[in-house]
Parts: sequence; structure tokens; C-alpha cells
Amino acid sequence: MRLRNKPWAKDKLLEYPQYVVHEPEQHRGRWNELFAAAQPLHIEIGTGKGRFITEMARANPNINYIGIELQESVIVSALDRLIEAGLPNCKLMNVNAAELEKYFASGDVNRVYLNFSDPWPKTRHEKRRLTYASFLSVYEQILVDQGEIHFKTDNQGLFEYSLMSFSHYGLLMKFVSLDLHNSGFEGNIMTEYEEKFSSRGNRIYRCEVQYPKK
Amino acid sequence: MRLRNKPWAKDKLLEYPQYVVHEPEQHRGRWNELFAAAQPLHIEIGTGKGRFITEMARANPNINYIGIELQESVIVSALDRLIEAGLPNCKLMNVNAAELEKYFASGDVNRVYLNFSDPWPKTRHEKRRLTYASFLSVYEQILVDQGEIHFKTDNQGLFEYSLMSFSHYGLLMKFVSLDLHNSGFEGNIMTEYEEKFSSRGNRIYRCEVQYPKK
Repeated sequence: MRLRNKPWAKDKLLEYPQYVVHEPEQHRGRWNELFAAAQPLHIEIGTGKGRFITEMARANPNINYIGIELQESVIVSALDRLIEAGLPNCKLMNVNAAELEKYFASGDVNRVYLNFSDPWPKTRHEKRRLTYASFLSVYEQILVDQGEIHFKTDNQGLFEYSLMSFSHYGLLMKFVSLDLHNSGFEGNIMTEYEEKFSSRGNRIYRCEVQYPKK
Repeated sequence: MRLRNKPWAKDKLLEYPQYVVHEPEQHRGRWNELFAAAQPLHIEIGTGKGRFITEMARANPNINYIGIELQESVIVSALDRLIEAGLPNCKLMNVNAAELEKYFASGDVNRVYLNFSDPWPKTRHEKRRLTYASFLSVYEQILVDQGEIHFKTDNQGLFEYSLMSFSHYGLLMKFVSLDLHNSGFEGNIMTEYEEKFSSRGNRIYRCEVQYPKK
């Protein structure tokens, strides 16, 4: 994604504490207190401009959502969308995914979404891919027992890599589609990126994987 | 594959005992005695007209190959090809894949190839797919410890199903390509079917999976 410098972004995030979680380590182990209702928590890592997370929150009022995005200049667009939607079950967090265990205790999270993550195609950047083993370990630490990752991408190389990485980590492949938009899969909510690239004829790959019993 | 009735097929198979294994149960646990050299044994299940297995045998003289095909009227075409090639490290067997443990003892086989297997797309035919759990169990019984299945197909539904079936069985995904012919993969030997369908623009999917340590 092209990044435009937005020097005002940090201040704007601070202006909306009802939507942007500040000092997230304060909520570790008790995230339900922050939301209007005590219900399952799903997080999206790399939430970008926030279309997926806000549409999911709107479609599933019985689930709480947190969209996590490291780039301030991107997450402010998600904030604009969330302000407009005014949803009680959706928040944003401007933190690094590699440090999620600081903010979530074991079992705090019921599901992890990864959508169109940066493919980092060079082998020397493998460790930065959000499906690399060290990230899978972070997700395992914060998820419920037998928690799931739901992953989609149009990047063939990243999907191939991720299938192998999930398998090596011992995750169970519960669902896989090698052409999501022609698969009859219902209820798909497209990200901004997904709409753009699928309209150019790119295939969308999707899978659901589950951690083994603890 | 369209089947033409060839009433003479059975007799022809019997005429070439140097290429078509008769009474395979006699060789259980001592397949090396049947070949010119004692070396690893790779089998292809559903060998069709035999192009893959004979070309593999030609390219890899340090490996023994057996092509297994249930249809007499199809395996005779593989026999013709093998007679012409005259290879010492390639045989054919006209038996049912579900009964392979009758013919091979544990560890007799070093690798299983599945190429463009019948997809059996109807759910009620799931048990007939060569990547269904009961077949994965048969292969496990005859393979060496940590043996591998190498699988390719142009059928998206069968490949998706097989990724899930392999994962549920506990197999490790060592390699996967979602577009083999555009992947830079070297040394691919095409089956008759593969050449025909890839020339029509169909993608070829391929993976290598490994059984866990016994």
C-alpha cells in the first residue's frame, strides 16, 4: 500500500478513545469490559483502511472486533470509516503484531483474520510474513484452545508458503478455496484491496486453519 | 478416460511377464529380486497409458518403478510403451489400489505418485478418491518410514479436498505449487492427460506430502 505522510494522524487517533484503544496492555485478560457486550473477540491483523473489520462488525453484532494496524497514516482511514459506522462492537489498535502477547492474555482472542498480508516475496524477508512460524506462535499464545486463523490473499506465492508454514506448525486445514469468488462461498466480505485486485481477474485464495488441542 | 473394450487385453498382459507383474503377492517383501538392480521403489497409482512412469524410469535409472492401473484396456497401452522403451527398472501391475497391502509389505515402497486421479466430484463418492483417508492408510502401510506422496492434478476441487484430507491425516506439506507450469519447477514429466489439459489453459496443481515418523 502506498503510504502518504499524515503528521496529524497520531493526534486524530488520540481524539477517539471510544474507537482507538489506548494503553491496550491495561485491558489484557479483560477485554470484554471495554465493549458494550461480553461476547467472542475476533481480531484482524493488518486491518488497513478498515472495510473488512467494520463490515464484519456490522454483519455480526454478537461478536466483538479489533482491527490492528501498525501504520498510523493508514489506520486513520479505518477510524474515519468507524466513526461513520458508529459500531459498539468494533475497535482499532495501532500496535505491532509481533507484540500481541503484551496486550492479549491466553484465550482473550477467539479468532484471527489475516487478509491480503504483505507477501514479503524475498526469502531473506520470510520472517516478516504474518504466517511465519514466530507469528503463528504469537497467535497461539493469545487464542482460545483450538482457535482458528482465517486467511485470504491474492498472492499465490504467499498462499503456497502459508500452506506449508501452517502444516509445519501442526495446524489443521479445515477449509481451503483456490478461487474464492467462483466457489459458492457465502458471506464473503471484501477488503478494499480484494475488490480492486479481483476485478482485475486475480484469483482469491482462502483457508481456515485450526490450532491443535492444548 | 474413455474406455474401449479390448477383449484381447488380458491375454496380451500375460504374454509379457517381464513387464507385467503376475501373482504380485509372491513378491511381497522382496520386490528387489524382481528387478535388475536393488534400489528404491516408486509406484504410480492410476498409471493410465504409462507415459509418466516410463519417462520417469528412463530419467532415473537408479530407481525402480511400478505403474499400477486397474483397467486392462488402458494398461495395455502402457505395456506397448514399455515394450518400446525396454526399460529394466519399470514394471506394470493390473490390480486394485485398495488392496495394495496384499502385494507390498511395510517399507517395500519409497514413494507414491498420484497423477490426475479421478476426481469423483460427488460427495457420495468421496470414498473412491485416491486421497481419501482409507487410501492414505493403505499407502502408509506399504511405505517406508516418513514416506512421501507426490500428487498432481488439474482438478481444483480434488486438490482442495486433498489438501484437507492430507492435513486431517497428519501429513506434512513439504511442497505445494498452485500453478506448476508457471512455477519454475524443474524436471516435471507430463502425463498424457496433463499435456492435453494444460494446453487448454488449465492450471496444474502439485504437492508433496510426507507421513510422520512411525
